[in-house]
Amino acid sequence: MTPTDPGTVRERLAAAAAWVQEGLDSLDMLRTSLSSLPGHAAYSIGAGGKRVRPYLVREGCLASGGDPSRALHAACAVEMIHTYSLIHDDLPAMDDDDLRRGVPTLHVRAGVDQAVLAGDLLLVEAFGELMRTPLGPARVAAMAARLASAAGPACLVGGQYMDMYHPAGAGMDWAARMIRGKTAAMIRVSLELGVLSSGSGDDLLERVSELGDRLGFLFQLTDDILDVRGSREEMGKGVSKDDGMDKSNPVSLLGIEAAAELAGSIADEVAGGFDALGGGWRPVSELALYLPARRS
Amino acid sequence: MTPTDPGTVRERLAAAAAWVQEGLDSLDMLRTSLSSLPGHAAYSIGAGGKRVRPYLVREGCLASGGDPSRALHAACAVEMIHTYSLIHDDLPAMDDDDLRRGVPTLHVRAGVDQAVLAGDLLLVEAFGELMRTPLGPARVAAMAARLASAAGPACLVGGQYMDMYHPAGAGMDWAARMIRGKTAAMIRVSLELGVLSSGSGDDLLERVSELGDRLGFLFQLTDDILDVRGSREEMGKGVSKDDGMDKSNPVSLLGIEAAAELAGSIADEVAGGFDALGGGWRPVSELALYLPARRS
Repeated sequence: MTPTDPGTVRERLAAAAAWVQEGLDSLDMLRTSLSSLPGHAAYSIGAGGKRVRPYLVREGCLASGGDPSRALHAACAVEMIHTYSLIHDDLPAMDDDDLRRGVPTLHVRAGVDQAVLAGDLLLVEAFGELMRTPLGPARVAAMAARLASAAGPACLVGGQYMDMYHPAGAGMDWAARMIRGKTAAMIRVSLELGVLSSGSGDDLLERVSELGDRLGFLFQLTDDILDVRGSREEMGKGVSKDDGMDKSNPVSLLGIEAAAELAGSIADEVAGGFDALGGGWRPVSELALYLPARRS
Repeated sequence: MTPTDPGTVRERLAAAAAWVQEGLDSLDMLRTSLSSLPGHAAYSIGAGGKRVRPYLVREGCLASGGDPSRALHAACAVEMIHTYSLIHDDLPAMDDDDLRRGVPTLHVRAGVDQAVLAGDLLLVEAFGELMRTPLGPARVAAMAARLASAAGPACLVGGQYMDMYHPAGAGMDWAARMIRGKTAAMIRVSLELGVLSSGSGDDLLERVSELGDRLGFLFQLTDDILDVRGSREEMGKGVSKDDGMDKSNPVSLLGIEAAAELAGSIADEVAGGFDALGGGWRPVSELALYLPARRS
């Protein structure tokens, strides 16, 4: 399958990033908090990142014929949960990272106590923000249930735990489950929330969900490949740290060449799946094709 | 106002504790997690506590004429959020407590990393659990929005921050705001969720909310009084630790005698307020009258 010019995908990502930033900059928590914690949270959110999850919320909504302004709360929510998970993951007792997205991690900047609380704040406020979605309560309740599931013990939190306590000799089955939890669940739910926020598209929801799961696996796989190939400058974080810890990820299990080949084939499969849903899904299929070629 | 026999209140609390424990023992997370984190969470939940918040959910539902089985998910949710806040609060970088409810805190037992993640799990799964409430989506969505607000930056998380970073010379105004966030918001929302889960009682909601806020202040005030008066055995945690850190709580600001007098007068006011709502609220007004006399 012929990928689009990577520049086009990067431009679309940048547009989605600007879109969600407006939402993040006007979050209620910035006005109503009893403390300066939202400022710390905003620091970690503002440190950048590609905004892939908000991009998927937005494109899922647009592809389902929805008005993206209705998807903005959900887009903020997924980015807030993503950022919370990074802040807690980076803590000294966890991965102990002092650099993230090219700037000091929050616990380095503000202390472990404030990093714990700022992460907590983002996690809970993500639900508060999602509940402000201007759609009927049945739809908003369904969105909240899916977000809780994706961030919960069977997905994000459970996957983070697996990533820290990987058993000796864990194979690809184990790695796939870990990635499904740690990364794919939030990618998947971003697309689901996009569809749900459109107010229609329910007939596509389960298919989008399956493809989103594969897209999430692809995203983590290409991240692991970059982690080995990348340079510190390009990634803005320590390189090959995971590799040095001998974690059982697909790259260490398969080798870099086979992993790259797998990424290419999953990208084709996922892009084909989204294209089959209709032309509106092209921005998502293009993202899939872009991932194996990305440099950051 | 004549308080009921404290034994009656303690029996009712024990009954509510047994009721919510059944719900906690059958949480979905215990079956679906990718990890052993729910076991750690269950350890911290199972270490006891008075279950005041689930009691208030249950009694709020009953007093509004509801079936308490519909309030069970909300009761589990508030206890999960309460337990998450204790786990994170006890961390070495925060209050650094090694004993809670008479047993080692989770980070002592399982490590800081697992304590952070188990707290995260409880916070997110509280929303997952609440969304399983068998009521219409409008009601469930309203409950989730209130829970997110009570746990969020303007309440619980913000109050925890204030409790850690209290300014020199903070007075009663500051202390009242801190307590409103740290403690009263979750007491208040427990009653609100009880009313909402009854499927009726909306006309009482704002009045219950105001009284719940006062009840929460009373709860913290009597806890602070106990903290000074209590013994290590009775409380199951270090005594006067907060006092030793010279925090600006009502007891250190007013002195123990004036604080106890204030507690008695707030208890009368709150009990009178609930009694005025109808006879069904008697278990809540009795709790208010019981609080100034409690020994643990």
